[in-house]
Order: sequence, then structure tokens, then C-alpha cells
Amino acid sequence: MVEKLKAIPLGGLGEIGKNMMALELADDLILIDAGLMFPEEDMLGVDLIIPDVTYVEERIHKLRGIVITHGHEDHTGALPYVLPRLRLPNGRLPPVYCTRLTKGLISVKLDEHHLLKQADLRMVRPGDRLKLGRFVVEIIHMTHSIPDSTALAIETPLGTVFHTGDFKFDHTPVMGDPPDLMRIAEVGRQGVLLLFSDSTYADTPGYTPSERVVSETLDRIMANAPGRVIVATFASLISRIQQVIDAALKNDRRVFVTGRSMMKNVQMAVEQGYLNAPGDILASLDKIRKLPPEKLAIITTGAQGEPTSALVRIANRDHRHIQIQAGDTVVFSSSAIPGNELLINRTIDNLYRLGANVLFSRIANVHVHGHAAQEELKLMIGLVKPRYFVPVHGEYRHLVMHSAIARALGVANDNVFTLEDGDILEIDKNGARVAGRTPADFVYVDGLAVGVDQVVLRDRKHLAGDGVMVAIVVIDRHTGKPIGRPDVVSRGFIETEMSDDLMEKARDVIEQALAGKEHVAERGDFNTRVHDALSRFLFQETRRRPMILPMSIEV
Amino acid sequence: MVEKLKAIPLGGLGEIGKNMMALELADDLILIDAGLMFPEEDMLGVDLIIPDVTYVEERIHKLRGIVITHGHEDHTGALPYVLPRLRLPNGRLPPVYCTRLTKGLISVKLDEHHLLKQADLRMVRPGDRLKLGRFVVEIIHMTHSIPDSTALAIETPLGTVFHTGDFKFDHTPVMGDPPDLMRIAEVGRQGVLLLFSDSTYADTPGYTPSERVVSETLDRIMANAPGRVIVATFASLISRIQQVIDAALKNDRRVFVTGRSMMKNVQMAVEQGYLNAPGDILASLDKIRKLPPEKLAIITTGAQGEPTSALVRIANRDHRHIQIQAGDTVVFSSSAIPGNELLINRTIDNLYRLGANVLFSRIANVHVHGHAAQEELKLMIGLVKPRYFVPVHGEYRHLVMHSAIARALGVANDNVFTLEDGDILEIDKNGARVAGRTPADFVYVDGLAVGVDQVVLRDRKHLAGDGVMVAIVVIDRHTGKPIGRPDVVSRGFIETEMSDDLMEKARDVIEQALAGKEHVAERGDFNTRVHDALSRFLFQETRRRPMILPMSIEV
Repeated sequence: MVEKLKAIPLGGLGEIGKNMMALELADDLILIDAGLMFPEEDMLGVDLIIPDVTYVEERIHKLRGIVITHGHEDHTGALPYVLPRLRLPNGRLPPVYCTRLTKGLISVKLDEHHLLKQADLRMVRPGDRLKLGRFVVEIIHMTHSIPDSTALAIETPLGTVFHTGDFKFDHTPVMGDPPDLMRIAEVGRQGVLLLFSDSTYADTPGYTPSERVVSETLDRIMANAPGRVIVATFASLISRIQQVIDAALKNDRRVFVTGRSMMKNVQMAVEQGYLNAPGDILASLDKIRKLPPEKLAIITTGAQGEPTSALVRIANRDHRHIQIQAGDTVVFSSSAIPGNELLINRTIDNLYRLGANVLFSRIANVHVHGHAAQEELKLMIGLVKPRYFVPVHGEYRHLVMHSAIARALGVANDNVFTLEDGDILEIDKNGARVAGRTPADFVYVDGLAVGVDQVVLRDRKHLAGDGVMVAIVVIDRHTGKPIGRPDVVSRGFIETEMSDDLMEKARDVIEQALAGKEHVAERGDFNTRVHDALSRFLFQETRRRPMILPMSIEV
Repeated sequence: MVEKLKAIPLGGLGEIGKNMMALELADDLILIDAGLMFPEEDMLGVDLIIPDVTYVEERIHKLRGIVITHGHEDHTGALPYVLPRLRLPNGRLPPVYCTRLTKGLISVKLDEHHLLKQADLRMVRPGDRLKLGRFVVEIIHMTHSIPDSTALAIETPLGTVFHTGDFKFDHTPVMGDPPDLMRIAEVGRQGVLLLFSDSTYADTPGYTPSERVVSETLDRIMANAPGRVIVATFASLISRIQQVIDAALKNDRRVFVTGRSMMKNVQMAVEQGYLNAPGDILASLDKIRKLPPEKLAIITTGAQGEPTSALVRIANRDHRHIQIQAGDTVVFSSSAIPGNELLINRTIDNLYRLGANVLFSRIANVHVHGHAAQEELKLMIGLVKPRYFVPVHGEYRHLVMHSAIARALGVANDNVFTLEDGDILEIDKNGARVAGRTPADFVYVDGLAVGVDQVVLRDRKHLAGDGVMVAIVVIDRHTGKPIGRPDVVSRGFIETEMSDDLMEKARDVIEQALAGKEHVAERGDFNTRVHDALSRFLFQETRRRPMILPMSIEV
């Protein structure tokens, strides 16, 4: 029987986020990353989205472990939800392999979900070689917008699979070493069967600037700002937080940290020795109350305009400790995740209204992103020289553009596979091919329930558009005739001033719809008649189509 | 009594869109522009937003006319809704003054609303001086992303008010003449009391490129594309449509137009002589069916990813006449209106999935916007040299940045007014000041109803988040006791598989909530008890908070 290597993307191909890749070889299966994705605005009421792990559940006896490339939520955030579903036949949770900082960030999350004790987190270092069944996974140091990021060189009987993780080639990183180009080149020289490479910015020409450039901007801002400097960024952007602390230190400002996740991560990173916060640079609330504004810097969450975040509460004047005062400078050290633009713009405008000066990446160099642009993607392909190429991490257009780059660099046309979640790529001695699909839909998390189905979302969209009208008819169970006048109530449909008269008419419409029949037939017929008559009437009158819920009560 | 000039922004200051400015002098009042705004994603079910004209309605006897600066919907789109509200004491609709193309575009809209006959549209030309009460309005030729754009120099007893309209200084426009710098400078030299200037791109350094640059890109695309070239843009972007026709002509391609508003505007613009479409360049459907792909170009709506637009139907494979085929090139000749990014990206991805090559402004020079960048804003202020300055057309941050530019150019600090909709700016011999506010909220249009109130929107948001649960209890009108078991039904709340058991428990909860009382008290008490008990229970079980509608039926 010929050896077959299967690569099954379960997330991150065709969308940004919920990254997860399964590699399967006979009786061994490993997962790379387990990320979450934030809902798009038409996924109403959804808290977050995780990958569908059905394929792995059905082969749970093969699962040898989960390797996490770095500590961002779009690569780690699904762990609290999928780990319990991936319990091994021996009853244990599968081992999760990750570098030190990544382990720290994951621990914070698992702790919130009361899973830390049962979880099996194993720390790895660049250079380590993990034997996971017949997969041998080598951890390679890589640079991204968070320290301790890694790429993976995975030896298989068919050849080496190289996974870049999220990366950019940052030769002057703010924390840690530059990328291990040497080792990547070595692996490439020894021959690589298959390359998975980060496509997030495949539509961007040139090189992504080093994190370093932000330091200069932050330094200048802290030096010149007349009052406090409030910096909003991602809670997981540890190196950015270090840059803020360094700039504050240099300009004799103390730093106050606010925002739940920010506080947790900063504390963890200080304990782990990732954040260098000398002496009493991190000030407590009572301390900063005593300091003049020009001696203060504040680090906060809310760079995406998240409604409950510290910065948004500050902008809306309902933060417990921090009020905007004249002379404040607010820095958005971040870029907008598509879909958040409006929330971010509103927050910026509200801060201006309160008299703050606001700086964001459109008007100042206060952010660089963490993903390779086109020239870096070419460099990666040039170093790795893979036989087969699969672009990962990106919406479909990014994957298409990245595939074009790989072809331009000489990867054979038929060896470039622009896959999407659920495609099963099969590689053996005879070649590579897409051999079928497995379910890999969005799994919605809403409140306690994992799994909101399409019906629920469609109903929510309907309700959101034109509201709801409930129509109630009491029916005599003996005569089968309506008793008294139908009752109607609506929400989110029309203003009360306008509605009274309309509601009366609606009740007439229901009566007419049910009239002329000796016996109101079975529920189905009743519902159809009331529903059709009402919706026709309401659309005529208002051009709106509220959801209509006909209910018959037999007494 | 001292003469007082009042300027009241009723739209466009603090948001993008629904532009409207009122100028009042004793017994005379004029309006500049009457635009609509498209809803932001949290304004659920709202079709569009128009300015609140209460202030004008209360002074309707003063209204001398409405002057429209150019033909874009954010300056004209509210006319069908506000004109009927602004009927003059003599029973007529107020005169609307606009240039030729603008008149054509407005006519199309008013016709759709069956208002064209009663409307009083009056065509004006650059150089015309309109006497509107004691206001003398001079029409000045200006450049923007639509031909026939104008600025206004409005003489008042207190001095000249200069309104730029939407503008950029395009010295090589695709249609019509360059801006009338001469006349603007003259007006400036004679002295300007107050300048209203377009702030939409006040956060953008440098100059905005001429429309001309797009012609070269379109020409190259049409020359090199192996198959059809499908260009999506705004239906009102007449000059861009001309550029597409010119590029097609040059490359021996016939042009097919699709999308309702696009077809209407093209027809109008051709009739008006604005679009130059020689011979049979504009091909009918049966014609293009016979032509090879490389001989075809298609102009379509949908550049913003509007769900019902022609391009989106093409991308979703449900356009009646056009299916994407290999070799097609789709060009998004537009920029994203904030909030539309996701819809646009989805459309792009779907087109890629169908095998089309897609070009958009992020990766190709296929669009330039129509608003002045910072250097042009400086030039305008430098030419007009106003005593007072009010930035218009922009979100609050744009207004703040534009104000900073004006100060940097020497406008006295106290003479720069960063206003928002509803502020009443009062100018007299003694100076200028904000003298109170007038209502200028968003007026929502949903279906036939003008005016969806906040309650309706709040309810829709609640319904959208967690759905609705209706709880019905039949009560004996004599004993006042519940008859039988309560009934519950929910939508958009939870998956049916999970719900059956939950619903049974919910009915128990209702029974318990009403138990122990001899007589179920009046409705209010009934509602509170059922509502509170249910919401507490459902939140415990699901961490969701559906809208709960308790209903008691007495029989």
C-alpha cells in the first residue's frame, strides 16, 4: 500500500482567522494551530467562530498532538472549545506543544474556562524536534508581531512539510532574535515537499517595515505630548507593549495599564520575563493620581473599538478611573480588522469631541502589521523551494494572489493548490491531488452554546430587518371557531404613534382571513392563512416585512 | 436692530452624507443641498437617512429656495423626502436651483417618486447670479468626481459667504473645464466673511490625483485583457462612465450597460449630451451575445457590494444575462464607503472563485476619489482668505483636522468654528458665536415610513442579538387563574434540536412564576413576573437574553 500524506485545512483558508491545519499519515494525525475568528456583522448575536473538528473527532485515536505556532487568538483562541471535543481514547486531553510566551497566553485563556488543570501544555524551544507518531516536528524561530513565534519543519516519510505560521522577516525585531534564515535555508536545501505559507498580506507590494519603526514614533509622541499619552493596542501585542514602556521610561513617564485582558497579559508577560518593566515604571492607580499628566502614559485595550473595552468606555465617559482631559494624546497603535472601521471611527470622533488629540495609523507611523508582504513571500518561497505549494491564512483573493506569486517563482502550475477549508489534499509518490472534502463550516459560539445553526441566524436577520408581529387567536376546541377578537403585538416593526390604527386593521385582516370557514382547520392551514393575509396587508401599508408568528390557542 | 446672519448645518457635519446647510437672514432663508446618507450596519432595517428639516418647516414662509451644488446622492438624495415637507405657504414646492447634469439626475429620482411634475427645478449656469430674497447666490464652476459641480459665492449685507461644495482642484478633468480659479481668487480679493469648505479628505496629505490617471489604467486593462472587461462603479460617476466608453472605443470593444440606476443615468446623460457614446458603441443584449469576449466591455453597478446590485448578482451566479467566464476581468473603479468593506471583499472573493481576474484600487490605479486633500484645502483657504471658517462635509475628526489647517494658515483661532449638525452659528457686526442649537438628528427612512424611532431600532438590535420568545398564558376571566399549560414559542433564539427540553422547562418556570397567587393580578404585574422569571432562567441555561413577550389572554 502506498504511503499517503493528507493535508486538511480546517480553518484559515478563505477567511481571516480560526486557523487550523490537520496533517494525516496512516495512523497518525497532528493539528497545527486552533484559532478563533471574530464574527462578521451579519452573524447576528454570535460571540465568536471556531473550526469544525468533526474530521479529527472521527479519527481521535490517531491524534498525536496539537502544535501551536504562536500566541495570537486566531491561532490559539479555539483551544478552550475544541480541547474538550478532542479528548483522547485514554480520557486525557491531547498534548498542546508551544513556546514559552505562547504557553503563558494560552494558560490565561484556559484558566478563564477552568480547563488549565486538565490541559496538557508542553513547552518547546526553537531547535526542538518533536516525535508525534511518524511526524517529526522541528520548531524554527520566526518573527511576527508577537515574540516566540515559530515556523515548523515537519519530516514525513514522503518528505518535509514546511509551515511558516504567521510571519514577516523582521531583521530588527523589538524583542528576541531575527528569523532563523540559516535553518530555513538548510531545510530548503535538503528539499521540501510542501510549503504552507502565510497569505494575509499577499495583496501588498514590497516589504513590511520592522516593528522598530514604531519605537521612534512612540518616543517622539511621548517626548512632545503636553499631557498624558494613552496608547491602545492588542492585549496580545506584547512587543508593542514593551515599546510603550520603553518610550515612557525614556521620557520619564510612569505607565498605567487598564483593560481586563491587557492587565492579565501584562502581568503574565512580566512574570514570564517577557516584559521588561524596571523598578516602579508600572504605576498603580493611587500613584498615577498623584502624578502630573506629562509624567503619565496609559496602555489600554479597545484599539478595535470593542464596545465594552476600556478605551471605548473612556471615549463614552463611563470609565471608572480615567476621564479624558485637555492635553491628552490618544494613540491607536493598531490597524482596523475589516468590519471594525465604524466602531473605531466612532471612538476616534468621541475622543476628539472630549478634546483629546488622536493619532492613528492613517495619519502617523504608530503601527506596523505582522505579516509578510509580496517581496518577503517571494523570499520565503525562494529559501524553501517547495515541490508543492499551498497558500494559507487569508481570504480567497489573498490565496489567489499568493498562488500567482508561487507560480511566478517557478513552482509548477499543477503543483500549486489554492485550497479552501475542508479540501483534502492527498500527496503520494505519484503526485498530489485534491481527493474530496470534509465538513469545515463555521462553528458559531453564542453564549454557552457551541453551534448556532443557519436557521437561527436567518431568523435573527429577519427580526433585525423589520421586527416581529405576534398574532393570537383563541379557538373554541369544540366548535373550532375563533372566540372574541384576535390579538396582535409587535416589536421592532413600527413606531407606536403610527401603529395603533394599523394594529386594529391588522386584527380585522386576521378575522377576515379566518372567516367563511365552518371550522378553522388544522394548525398548518391556520398558520398559512393568517401569515399570508397579514404579511400581504402589512407590506402594502408599510413596505416592511416583519416576521409574523401566528398562534392559535384552543380552549 | 442689527443684521444677523445665521448658518445652521442640518447635515454633513459629524457624519459623511445627508449634506444640508441653512442660511438665514431676517426674513429670508435658503438651503444648500439636500442629501441622503446610507445607514450604518447597526441601524437595522433602515433604508436611508435624511436631514431633519424641522427648523425650516417652522420658518417655511422664509424659504426662498434650495441650491444644489452637484448631482451626487449625498447632496440631492433627500429631495424626494423633504420637498413635500417644505411646501410653501402658496401651496407650491420650493424652487430647486441646479446645473444641467444635476437637474437630469434629480429628475430621474423625483420621477421615481412621482414628484417630477409638481417639482420646480430651475437650471442655472456658472456665472449666474440668483436673487433669493436678500441673498445673491453666484454659481462658480468647480471640479469634483462628477461634471457640472459648483461652488457658491453668496452675497449678504454682512459680507460674502463662500461654499465650496464637494471639490478637488482637477486641472485636467475628464469632462468639462478646470475649476474657475480666477473667479474664486477675485471673490477672495473682494473679501469673504465666511468659508464653508469640504473636509471629507482633510486627513489625507498632499494632492488628490486628477481623474485623468484612471483613463490610462482603464486603457491598459482594455488593451491587455484576454476576455471581457467588466467595470463596476457608481451610477452617478458620469465622468468615469465616459472614461470606460472612451477606453472601450479605443480598444475596439462594444459596451453593455447593466444595473437599473446605471442604465437610467447613462440614458439620461446621453440624452443630455453629457455622455459621448458615438455610433453603436453602446450595444444591446442580443448584439453583445454575438460578439467575442475580447470585443466586449460591461459597465455595472455594485461597486459597494450592494446585495441586490447587478455585479453582486453576477458574483452569486444569479444574473439573468451575464455569467462569469474564464478570461473575464472585473474592475472595481471605486473606493469602499466605510462599513461596506466586508460586502465588497466577499464580492471580490466570489468573482475570483468563479475564475475572474479582479482589479481594485488596493492593487491597481483604477480609482481616484473626488475630494481635496490637505494641500488643496490650503490652496482653497489661501485663495478665499475668509474671516470666519467652518469645515463642512466630514466626520468629526475630519472637521477637527480641517480646522487645524485653517488656523495654521492664519485664520484667527476664535474665528474657526468646528460645528456639528444643529449648531446655530450667528454672525453680526460684533462678531460670530454659536447661539444655541436646533434639532438635527438622523431621520430614518424605512419602507414607506419616514421616521423610525429609537425604540424600534433598540428593539431590532435586541431581536437581532438573541431572538425572541413569546410566552402565552390563557386566564379565566372569572377566577383570574391560568387555564391549562402556558405556551411558548421562540425564533432566532436557539437551535430546535437543543430547544425542546428547554421549552418544556420554560413552561414550568412560567407556571411557578404565576403560582401561589389566588388571582393573577393586573397585566403589568403579570408581565413583570413572567418576564423576569423567564429571562433569569434562560440566561442561566444559555447565557443569552432573548426579547421576552409575555401575553395573557382572558377567556
